[in-house]
Amino acid sequence: MAKIRLGMVGGGIGSFIGPMHQLGAQLSGRFELVAGAFSSDPERARDAGANYGVAPDRCYAGHAEMIAAEKARPDGIQVLAIATPNHLHLPAALAAIEAGLHVMSDKPATATLAEAEQLRDALAAGTSLYALTFTYSGFPIIREARARIAAGMIGAVRKVVVTFNQGWLANALEQAGNPRAAWRMDPSRSGVGGCISDIGTHAFHLAEYVTGDTVSEIVADVRTHVPGRALDDDANILMRFAGGASGVLASSQVAVGERLGFTLQVFGEKGALHWHAEAPETLRFIAADGAVSLLSPMSPGLLVREPLPPGFGGSILAGFAVQYRDFAKAIDGDAALIGTVLPGIEDGVRTMRFVETAVQASAERAGWTALA
Amino acid sequence: MAKIRLGMVGGGIGSFIGPMHQLGAQLSGRFELVAGAFSSDPERARDAGANYGVAPDRCYAGHAEMIAAEKARPDGIQVLAIATPNHLHLPAALAAIEAGLHVMSDKPATATLAEAEQLRDALAAGTSLYALTFTYSGFPIIREARARIAAGMIGAVRKVVVTFNQGWLANALEQAGNPRAAWRMDPSRSGVGGCISDIGTHAFHLAEYVTGDTVSEIVADVRTHVPGRALDDDANILMRFAGGASGVLASSQVAVGERLGFTLQVFGEKGALHWHAEAPETLRFIAADGAVSLLSPMSPGLLVREPLPPGFGGSILAGFAVQYRDFAKAIDGDAALIGTVLPGIEDGVRTMRFVETAVQASAERAGWTALA
Amino acid sequence: MAKIRLGMVGGGIGSFIGPMHQLGAQLSGRFELVAGAFSSDPERARDAGANYGVAPDRCYAGHAEMIAAEKARPDGIQVLAIATPNHLHLPAALAAIEAGLHVMSDKPATATLAEAEQLRDALAAGTSLYALTFTYSGFPIIREARARIAAGMIGAVRKVVVTFNQGWLANALEQAGNPRAAWRMDPSRSGVGGCISDIGTHAFHLAEYVTGDTVSEIVADVRTHVPGRALDDDANILMRFAGGASGVLASSQVAVGERLGFTLQVFGEKGALHWHAEAPETLRFIAADGAVSLLSPMSPGLLVREPLPPGFGGSILAGFAVQYRDFAKAIDGDAALIGTVLPGIEDGVRTMRFVETAVQASAERAGWTALA
Amino acid sequence: MAKIRLGMVGGGIGSFIGPMHQLGAQLSGRFELVAGAFSSDPERARDAGANYGVAPDRCYAGHAEMIAAEKARPDGIQVLAIATPNHLHLPAALAAIEAGLHVMSDKPATATLAEAEQLRDALAAGTSLYALTFTYSGFPIIREARARIAAGMIGAVRKVVVTFNQGWLANALEQAGNPRAAWRMDPSRSGVGGCISDIGTHAFHLAEYVTGDTVSEIVADVRTHVPGRALDDDANILMRFAGGASGVLASSQVAVGERLGFTLQVFGEKGALHWHAEAPETLRFIAADGAVSLLSPMSPGLLVREPLPPGFGGSILAGFAVQYRDFAKAIDGDAALIGTVLPGIEDGVRTMRFVETAVQASAERAGWTALA
Repeated sequence: MAKIRLGMVGGGIGSFIGPMHQLGAQLSGRFELVAGAFSSDPERARDAGANYGVAPDRCYAGHAEMIAAEKARPDGIQVLAIATPNHLHLPAALAAIEAGLHVMSDKPATATLAEAEQLRDALAAGTSLYALTFTYSGFPIIREARARIAAGMIGAVRKVVVTFNQGWLANALEQAGNPRAAWRMDPSRSGVGGCISDIGTHAFHLAEYVTGDTVSEIVADVRTHVPGRALDDDANILMRFAGGASGVLASSQVAVGERLGFTLQVFGEKGALHWHAEAPETLRFIAADGAVSLLSPMSPGLLVREPLPPGFGGSILAGFAVQYRDFAKAIDGDAALIGTVLPGIEDGVRTMRFVETAVQASAERAGWTALA
Repeated sequence: MAKIRLGMVGGGIGSFIGPMHQLGAQLSGRFELVAGAFSSDPERARDAGANYGVAPDRCYAGHAEMIAAEKARPDGIQVLAIATPNHLHLPAALAAIEAGLHVMSDKPATATLAEAEQLRDALAAGTSLYALTFTYSGFPIIREARARIAAGMIGAVRKVVVTFNQGWLANALEQAGNPRAAWRMDPSRSGVGGCISDIGTHAFHLAEYVTGDTVSEIVADVRTHVPGRALDDDANILMRFAGGASGVLASSQVAVGERLGFTLQVFGEKGALHWHAEAPETLRFIAADGAVSLLSPMSPGLLVREPLPPGFGGSILAGFAVQYRDFAKAIDGDAALIGTVLPGIEDGVRTMRFVETAVQASAERAGWTALA
Repeated sequence: MAKIRLGMVGGGIGSFIGPMHQLGAQLSGRFELVAGAFSSDPERARDAGANYGVAPDRCYAGHAEMIAAEKARPDGIQVLAIATPNHLHLPAALAAIEAGLHVMSDKPATATLAEAEQLRDALAAGTSLYALTFTYSGFPIIREARARIAAGMIGAVRKVVVTFNQGWLANALEQAGNPRAAWRMDPSRSGVGGCISDIGTHAFHLAEYVTGDTVSEIVADVRTHVPGRALDDDANILMRFAGGASGVLASSQVAVGERLGFTLQVFGEKGALHWHAEAPETLRFIAADGAVSLLSPMSPGLLVREPLPPGFGGSILAGFAVQYRDFAKAIDGDAALIGTVLPGIEDGVRTMRFVETAVQASAERAGWTALA
Repeated sequence: MAKIRLGMVGGGIGSFIGPMHQLGAQLSGRFELVAGAFSSDPERARDAGANYGVAPDRCYAGHAEMIAAEKARPDGIQVLAIATPNHLHLPAALAAIEAGLHVMSDKPATATLAEAEQLRDALAAGTSLYALTFTYSGFPIIREARARIAAGMIGAVRKVVVTFNQGWLANALEQAGNPRAAWRMDPSRSGVGGCISDIGTHAFHLAEYVTGDTVSEIVADVRTHVPGRALDDDANILMRFAGGASGVLASSQVAVGERLGFTLQVFGEKGALHWHAEAPETLRFIAADGAVSLLSPMSPGLLVREPLPPGFGGSILAGFAVQYRDFAKAIDGDAALIGTVLPGIEDGVRTMRFVETAVQASAERAGWTALA
């Protein structure tokens, strides 16, 4: 089957997420990265292109130039992958939509809720498909968790506890020249949220994705612990779900010593599910009779099967590969994958509403605040 | 050294906590259980006495009778251990204080905040020593955690996450004749709180005990998930500490599959501490340079040394033994242990204030509410 | 029910195992320690007696004196608990048997195989019951493992891997005045084995106990790593079981950093079982269809139920309590418990044969050597 | 920098290891797969080529044809990657050497010891570089373990315990049409060893790689548990190292329920190291004072730094990427990497000698047998 032609904006030298997009796309077996606007500096753009195996004449200075040039080619790109800081997501996505390209965007959807809503409108008016790489929802065992809850295997959900803790911003790295810290803690590039936008959105999305439910109201305690920092670096949030469940979300980038402290616990009327990113291919499942099982990709009775190599199905790269494969399927006709197993613009709008509501309600020391 | 003579109220046949008090007292090497009012049913009281090795003539029908009779003996009891349901804590403690006996009470201090304050006043007016068996604060490795924070080894505390999850009340056992469930979910015996009083208090106390700080305000979402239940079975709570730290407390007795899901994470400016009751002798310590250590009773550099057998120092029984030993030391003259390493009436008042504030604020859907 | 009267030899001040016997006996609810020959030094014996709550006039200078005096009392001891170094096991047991007392002995049975066989003969000729506290075989979850294999739940056993690693003898503590190290590394008190006798026997016994099979031949590499040490401190052993299974046993007391590195894995034709002493109440069970379960005392479908408090069922103390309770049942008439769920003299003979065969075969650098 | 041109033999449709070579090579940033002899069936070869992004005219029917055609091109391959069953390793490698190509071979080096020695001779006579992808030795944390032992951080090694357990061959899959099982259990394609060759070699190599020592003698118990199977499926082996350490190696493919039960423990005079493939980025390090650290890629004080994404550094793919990068460095001039951090032909010869000695000594029920 012919490969789908992919262009990337962002993901230049030093980027962590750019290579994840390219390799994930390649691992899916359905995409080929053929063009890129990796950097506004032409030399750096060409170096990045060489790393990615993109021909020098298809390394562009910006997304606008790339889209224009590629539209003019018979073998031009069909999909735009967005791997830039948050503030550039919207303009790149809008340009792609206008040009009739599909969009595979890194999370969060945009820098603000208003932008996310603008993007939703543009998508509704156009013909482009749009998916959002909340990577963890590409992990096979996370999809198994989702499928089990959907199948009623733990009964109605009563309680959700989700944490995402990292420690790498416990000191003011953004003031010490670390570029990855710098844009994340710069409101002009990250948007209204710092930690809550960067990893809190992963936690929020996972809670909704796995339960299949939506959060209807929150109380938020969003903090900035490191002096001089412009955006938040920690958040504790109480949640109520539309379906009646309670929830807690705790995320932090000042959690000293944590590298990938991403955990999810869902307790239902008759069963429970636990997942921890440090054992990312294992799902702890408690059945109605209290039996505790450890599910992994070789377990019997799985609802979701993905033939990934052992030890690989819990890597970020695997998450990208699975999501790129699903996006290819959507392009090939199965558009209903988007917004169900593959996150789409509604997930993007919801997560941005979560970010803005939490930041604002916390600043006002508000009690329960609706997310609707 | 002569053993201190102990009498017990409660702890009859089928009690879990009664034997913990007796064996803990004995393991401490400093106490001897010589009398008891184990049950209001005389036959059951005598059976319990036989199990405990208490002479039949010192098995009484109630605490009042026991105290009167024991006061008349030259070898009468010196300390009253309270192992009853919550609503009996206050009358038993008051009677002991009036008789000049010391009191070793199970947690929580009383059934209500008003009772706890009444008890505090009575203690202030009398000469009795009073300690409260929040067992986990007797674990050596928990005391190590407390000592490390007090010594500044993780810097100023920024964030505390504490959970206590059990699943045994996921169904309405109290309506099915389970006596341990019945009194816990009966307001006339448990007080204003159900789960929050039974295990939420452990979590709250641990957070304050280890940090050496006090919670100044909370937002509480206290729930009753099981239909027909008179008291709460789940709580999620945001906290702010006087010293500036944020906190989250999540406790539940409908957490299907959990037996002892008690965990504590404390993140400081330059280090962190983690503990999980499923590996109760291990403390995960993250130092200023990011190094992760697993501390256990044989580790070098511990601030707190307790010569307990391997595998035993994390058992509830060990917690009782250590706390009874400390109470003996207090009786022998080192009263300053109480209220510092050994919980006392102030801990009792604080935890009851936490329970009542959380339950009431949640019922009113209040935002941030002071604990003072 | 009247308590069975227990006397103890050994277990003086500083002993680890003496208090385990006394508290285990008491926790069983069926025994009372009323006499002891805790030390040959009268003053130390009396101090130990005070700790144990034994009357001064029943604290004796040696087992012979104790047995003689107690036989003369109407309320004299009925059972002798042996908690001495190994070389004193045989004379104490023989004296008890001669006096018609039952014997509850600490492991290993004796210091040598010849002694164990002599003890077996004496038991056969007398009326005493004899049990051996291989503690771990008193853990409820270990008995569950044994019951599952006996019930065919993993099919015929193919492979057994058992390790017992400690690090406390990585240096020559016995040359530095540590009394617990000193007797263990002294051939006149420990017998022919050091580490292999002290903890290798636990590993060997567990392998046979859980599988219900017997080891028929071994290849042994028994080592002394620490210079100047008179007995072994490390052993690696290949095993073949009578039933056809392969096995590996690795034990060490120079395993730096290990405190209780006791693990068991049993692989069968259609299932498997794993246990680790660091999570002593958990049994990992793999069923015929590959499903992985974590069994704990609250799990559904257990074959063995023991109503122990959460977190306690995996403590050494619990093992003693369960084994003392079973010994009481044996005394009360159910003698068939001994040699089945409760280890008896045959277990003692087999483990001593294992020790001597391994030590000797290793010294000769022999290949496969029969254990029969 | 120009990419090094890679051709692959083997790795056709359904292969696990072929994509690992290609993606690892690509992730290294230094290689490009441009040609392949993926299958002897031309259509299947072309399909595989399409998956890999190899032009149809560079998909060949066999290694001989590929090497001949590529030699004739100015842009022909420079390196041959070998991803076939074992019996094809030698002819492919010899052809490459004769053509002056470098060789990156999957493990084991060959099907027999004699072949490995023949390959060693051919390499000595030629100019080709040769490396062997024992993947785990490309894991950063494994290299850290090796570096710490080399730096004396645990003192002289006393004991090594290594296990590699899988369960996927607990039944006779090779008789049920599973192609990956079929070649592994077919002596004409796998060589003299089954499980011992497939994963026992990983365990053996890791033990030597991390300790920097060599095994000098062994006792082996190599078994075939599944009836009708032509090669072994289980092995337990005692080892002695040239430097004086003891060792145990246990590997199995009938270990029901195990997916990647690969573990290493090394105990030294003053420290220890533990690794488990289920937490592949973590190294448990016990220091001279008994302190237990958990080392991961973000830990302070590491001797080896590899800038891999979190969660990725313990994947097989990462191992390939690191080893391909090192092979590129070797080609670029740093040939001393081979045989030190990057396994080479000596590793290949040693592991084949281990396989053949173990299989033969076990068949003869021999005692200690030299490996030299």
